[in-house]
Formats: sequence, C-alpha cells, structure tokens
Amino acid sequence: MTKLARQLTAETLGTALLVGTVVGSGIMADSLSDDTAVSLLGNTIPTGATLFVLITIFGPVSGAHFNPAVTMVFALRRDITVRVACFYVVAQILGGIVGSLIAHAMFELPVIQFSSTVRTGSAQWLAEIVATFGLIAAILGGLKYRPSAVPALVGFYITAAYWFTASTSFANPAVAIGRGLTDTFSGIRPMDVPAFIAAQLIGALLCFWLANWLFAERTDD
Amino acid sequence: MTKLARQLTAETLGTALLVGTVVGSGIMADSLSDDTAVSLLGNTIPTGATLFVLITIFGPVSGAHFNPAVTMVFALRRDITVRVACFYVVAQILGGIVGSLIAHAMFELPVIQFSSTVRTGSAQWLAEIVATFGLIAAILGGLKYRPSAVPALVGFYITAAYWFTASTSFANPAVAIGRGLTDTFSGIRPMDVPAFIAAQLIGALLCFWLANWLFAERTDD
Amino acid sequence: MTKLARQLTAETLGTALLVGTVVGSGIMADSLSDDTAVSLLGNTIPTGATLFVLITIFGPVSGAHFNPAVTMVFALRRDITVRVACFYVVAQILGGIVGSLIAHAMFELPVIQFSSTVRTGSAQWLAEIVATFGLIAAILGGLKYRPSAVPALVGFYITAAYWFTASTSFANPAVAIGRGLTDTFSGIRPMDVPAFIAAQLIGALLCFWLANWLFAERTDD
Amino acid sequence: MTKLARQLTAETLGTALLVGTVVGSGIMADSLSDDTAVSLLGNTIPTGATLFVLITIFGPVSGAHFNPAVTMVFALRRDITVRVACFYVVAQILGGIVGSLIAHAMFELPVIQFSSTVRTGSAQWLAEIVATFGLIAAILGGLKYRPSAVPALVGFYITAAYWFTASTSFANPAVAIGRGLTDTFSGIRPMDVPAFIAAQLIGALLCFWLANWLFAERTDD
Repeated sequence: MTKLARQLTAETLGTALLVGTVVGSGIMADSLSDDTAVSLLGNTIPTGATLFVLITIFGPVSGAHFNPAVTMVFALRRDITVRVACFYVVAQILGGIVGSLIAHAMFELPVIQFSSTVRTGSAQWLAEIVATFGLIAAILGGLKYRPSAVPALVGFYITAAYWFTASTSFANPAVAIGRGLTDTFSGIRPMDVPAFIAAQLIGALLCFWLANWLFAERTDD
Repeated sequence: MTKLARQLTAETLGTALLVGTVVGSGIMADSLSDDTAVSLLGNTIPTGATLFVLITIFGPVSGAHFNPAVTMVFALRRDITVRVACFYVVAQILGGIVGSLIAHAMFELPVIQFSSTVRTGSAQWLAEIVATFGLIAAILGGLKYRPSAVPALVGFYITAAYWFTASTSFANPAVAIGRGLTDTFSGIRPMDVPAFIAAQLIGALLCFWLANWLFAERTDD
Repeated sequence: MTKLARQLTAETLGTALLVGTVVGSGIMADSLSDDTAVSLLGNTIPTGATLFVLITIFGPVSGAHFNPAVTMVFALRRDITVRVACFYVVAQILGGIVGSLIAHAMFELPVIQFSSTVRTGSAQWLAEIVATFGLIAAILGGLKYRPSAVPALVGFYITAAYWFTASTSFANPAVAIGRGLTDTFSGIRPMDVPAFIAAQLIGALLCFWLANWLFAERTDD
Repeated sequence: MTKLARQLTAETLGTALLVGTVVGSGIMADSLSDDTAVSLLGNTIPTGATLFVLITIFGPVSGAHFNPAVTMVFALRRDITVRVACFYVVAQILGGIVGSLIAHAMFELPVIQFSSTVRTGSAQWLAEIVATFGLIAAILGGLKYRPSAVPALVGFYITAAYWFTASTSFANPAVAIGRGLTDTFSGIRPMDVPAFIAAQLIGALLCFWLANWLFAERTDD
C-alpha cells in the first residue's frame, strides 16, 4: 500500500515537473527571443536535462515512466500489472495537468488556459509515430543492454526528437494533455490531442513488436 | 582542525567559483548579444558545467554544498553538526561575495556594486520554492540511489531550472547574496534578497519532509 | 541467419534514424531562424544526441557502425568478414536513403529530392579527410581504452566536427548519399558525393594505419 | 623509445586537433552569425566536446596534457621527468601551430597568419590566472577523487571558462601560441602572448600549491 502510494506520488510529481519544465521553459524562451530556433533551444535543453534528473531519482521508486505510452509497453511486457498500470496513467495525467498550472502560476499567467495552437495532419501524426517509436526503442534497448544509461538515453533522445520531428516530439499522452492546457509556446489545441495520442500509441506498439525480436539477445553470445 | 579548515576552504572557494561563473558568464553573455534568450543560454551552460566540475572535485573534501539551504537539510538529517553547519554557511556567504567581486575585477567593472534589478512578488517567490524543492529532490534522490551521479544531477537540474522558473532559479541563499552585489545581467536588488532566501528555505524544508518518505527505500526490495 | 538479420535491421534502422535526425533537424532549424549559426546549433545538438542513443542501443546488436568507412576499418581489422561487411554497407546506404525520405514526409516536403548545394573543392575534401580521421581515432581509441564511452565519444566528436571542419563533417559515405537526396539545409549535390566518399575513405585508412601503432598498448604497462 | 615516440605523437596530434577545433569552429561560427554570443556558443560547445574526446583516447597514451602549464605541474609532482616534460612542451607547441595551419587550409584561408586581436591588460591577465587556476584544480581534484571523470571535467570546465573569464580562457600556453597564428575569431596578437603565458603559469603554480594541501586526502577517512 505504502509502496503503491510512493509509486503514484513519484509518477505524479515527476510528470508535473516534466510538464512544468516543458511549459515553463517554453514561456521563458519565447518571451526572451524573436528567433524561434533560439526559443526552441531554450525549450529543448531544459527538457532533456530535467528528464535525466527525474528518471535518475524517481526510477528506483516507480520506474519513472511519466508517460502512458511507456506504461502500456511495460504492461504488455508484464513488468507491471494492468491494475497498477491504470493507476499510473491516472497519476501521470494528473501530473501533466498540475505541471501546466504551476508553470502558469510561476509566470503570473492565467492558471487555466486552453491552447489555440493547431497541430494536426498526417505529417504531424507520422512525426508522432516516429518520435514515440524511437523513444520506446531508446528505453527498451537501454534496459536490455545498459540500464544505468536509461536516464541519459531518454534525455538525449528527446533533445534530438524536438528537432527532427515536425511535431517537436510530444511522444507522451500525459504531456500532450498537459500541453493542451497552455496557450503558450508549447501548447497544442485540445481537439488535436486525441489524434496525437493515437499516433503515440501506434508508434509505441510498433516498437514493442520490433524490439521483442531485435533486442532478443546479445548477438555476440 | 585541518579537516575543518579544508572543508571551509572548499566551501568558500567552490562558492566563489560558482558565483564567479554565474556573474561572469552573465556579464559576458549580456555584452555579446541583443537576444536575451541567447544571453541566458550563455549564462546557463557555463553554470551547469561548472557545477558538475566543482561538485566532483570538492565533494570528497567538504560535501560540496556551496548552498546554505543544502547545508540546512544536511544538518536536519544529522549528516553534519549544527556547529559545522554554521561555519559552512559563513564560508559560503563569504565565497558568494568574493565570487562577485572577482568577476567584476576580471571584466574591468567597479568591484563594489549593488544590483538595481527588481525580483519580487509572489510569482517569483513561488518559483524559488519550486526551484529549491527540485534541487533538494535531485540531491537527496541522487544520494540515495546513485551517489556518483550527484554532480551531473545538480548541473543538469540547474541548467533546466534557469529556464522553467520565472526567477531563473537562484535556489541558493549564498548565491542570492553574491548576486545582490552585482548590477549586471544576473543581479538581484539587495532588498529583494531576504524574501528569496525565505522562499528557498521553505522549498528546501518541504522537499526534506517529502523525501524522508518518498526516498525511504527501494520499492523493489 | 537470425543473427545477421538482426544486425542488418539494426544497421538500416540506425542509419535511417541518424540521417532522419540530420536532415529533419536541419529542416526544422533552418525554417525557424535567420541566423545560420543558430540553425547549425539546432542541427548539431540533435545529431550528437541521437548518435549517443543509437550507438548505445544498437551497439550490442550490430556494432552500430551506420557508416561504410567504419565498416571498412573493422573489416581491415578482421573484426567482421568481408562478406558481412558488404551486407552492412548495403544496409547502411539503404538506411541513409530511407532516413531522408522519412524526414521529408514528416515535414510535408516532396519525398524525392536531389540536393543543389555545392560542396566541392580541395578545402572541403581536406576537411572530410580530417573529419573522418578524427572519427576513426575516437572509435579505435575508445574501443581500446574505454569501450563503454564509445557512444559518448562519437556523439561529442561529431558535435565538434560539425563546426571545426569547413564541410560540417559528413565523415560517412552512407550519410553523404542520404544527404544527396535532400534539397534542404543539410544537402549535398549528388555529383559532389563521390569525392566526399573518397576523402572519407582516405581519412579512415590514414587513421587505421596510425592507430595500429599509436593505440598498440598502454604505455604505462 | 617507442613509448616516448607514441607519447610525443599523442601530444602533438592531440594539441593540433584541439587548436584546430578552437580556431576552425571560431572561423565557422563567426562567419555564420552576426550575434557574437551565438558565435561564442558555436566556439565553446565544440571545444568542450573535443576535449572530452581527445583526453579519453590519448590519456592512456601520453596523459593527454596538450598544455605546457599542465606538463609543468606534473613535472613538479614528479609524475614525469623534467627531460620528458621538455619534449612534451615542444610537441605541444608544434601541435598548436599545426592546428592553426590546418584550420586555415580547411577554410581556404591564407595558411600563415598573425593575429591583430588585442588581448592585454591586468584584467585579462587576472582572468588567465583564474582560468588556469581552475583548470589545474579540475585536473588535480579529478585525478585524486575520480580519475575516470577527468575528460568530462576538463571539457565542462573549459566550456564554462570560455564565458566566465573576460579573456575567454586560453589557460594553455601552446594554445595561446597557436592562436597567435590566426587572424580570425579566436586569435590573439603575438605580442600579447607572453604575458598570457606568464599569467597561466602563475595560475597553475598557485593551484599546485593549494591543491597539495586541499586535496591531500579524503576528509571522510
């Protein structure tokens, strides 16, 4: 019981700090520069850095998923039960929402907002499939071959994916929901969120299926 | 006796180099760019990098606190005595002041300055609570689960926190005092410093209380 | 058989993700900024980050060459057979091409393109010789003295080489071919590719020859 | 004999690649941007990254000094003989010069140049004393407490020092000589070089003296 409480606290707090970083650094970077690429750098570097920190310190507590797509994959691998997975997803979504609200409070903006940024279309959805596919590959490959590197792998992967995907790589349904609730740099129109989530789950499933075969064993055995 | 002298030297020297980096890189970055986000990048990256270096080399000597809020938490955990903690805080504040002065000397600016940058209001104080809460979480989680990563955790955490907090994350009373003594990019008006320190101590205490429960043991035990 | 299939899948997928990152982040960065150095930062940081990830997770599967020049050196060292090396090179070139196409699809650009960016002349070729020489030195020195650091070594090396070589350091024939197929930020005119490949192979051979002697043993033995 | 030849090759090649990176990335960054802080970022990141690579791969061969001030300190510690130290210094200076020339050749600039950039005055000299003091502290503290981190420590330290010192932290006589031979972004007027070298040696000696006492043993013993 205490164990589950700790796990859910870690998932909520970690996702809140993650979304707080994404939204907050987006607000800061956007307000300081007229150059959108500079703003994206000021959004990317903090996000990658915070992922390294959060996964290192919360990993031993809850696994540091912070992401329903990741939790789904671990449930499919039977690393966690479906029941615990459902609790995790609720905790993550709650954390994502809280993260947006806290970022607004810190920057003296209206706490409740809804994004008006359009992010839709098949190219964006392809980008989310690719982004989440790569994220799951980084996690499953890392867990198989170098578990201690997973925090760095996820941090660096997202750092890269912000730039190589047209969608700036949400790759996370809880983050997508949280970002639906901010009408700032990193926002996404709430009505565009469901298709993003669908694309993310497809990317995660594709990678889960491939990784089962690809990372099956060391080839030098 | 020699041990305490070494510890205090490490705390003073480390805090001086930390504040020297914060203030010096702020001066350099601000003078070279009209884009404030670029200047903040030029302030962020050196600060994160120097924290990694200073904590790695001074950690085995003094614990590499460089921060009265951190020292307070370690005293509450009874990792150090109250008496040594008091010496540490004096050494850190001294180091913070010296760091500002040296930065000014290197850039041919008046050595004694007082900042005129207003940093006040409840949103800024909330930001400092969040910033220091996160810093203590990074340190206590790191010490519990992966001590060798603490220098990287603190460096990356501050790299992120510069951007996701509206206050640019001082999260350190000694640094706040040092930055009160520079009327440059990273300064803070001396009269705004006490409220920042109060917010930092509140954030540290909140995290200390939560971490006692959250990082109590490995949940996989 | 399964082992070879896994190896070739890893080489194709890894090279595709690498070129997808190079081309995609180039498109993103170029579209967001008028400052070419900012765009190059937005191209460099993702490329270095993705190399760290891909080499970590695919290294135990295939060796994570993603680069015919690297494969050639490993064949010369008799780490892999010439037959497998030939398969690797085909897989890498295929991956490089697929990577460009996917990047275009994600950014809603025409999928099939040919670059018009002129990159030729002896200075550029010298740059590619130096760039590939250094890349092979990073790999062979890392494998000899610190194998666990190879992903970081290659990621950081390419991060540096984007800037210190006039050619922005392709250093990889499969990447050069993939970049021939994009008329965006990171492209290279197809007719300029063969000379780049020749320069890359020369740089790789020079380093192979030197490294045999230089990294022969620990000098402190 | 072979051992010394390997050591001197590593020192020359490493210093050449280091100065080639400093000078080359300076040329690239300066030509691509009108924002000097962006150019300095494009000069800083490659320099830090390349130091990590060069020290990792050449450290086991020669110690990877690449710096007469570092070699002087190791000679004072009797880690190497004065005779070998003299050879090292010659090899480093030679490498520094070659690095500048190769950078010019890669960028199609006149190979032989002399800088006209004035870098003089007591503030700059103080900056070089501080910069080299910190560099030696990073190296000696790292060697004492965490030798495997020395490549990262030096890379991150120089990344920071480029920004917090008014001189952009040369901290290396061989690099200063090499940079005297380029009239580009990173140059220094040859007549200003001797005072820089003097300041660097003073900073190194001050730190050598302090480190003997400060890093004498683990205080937790």
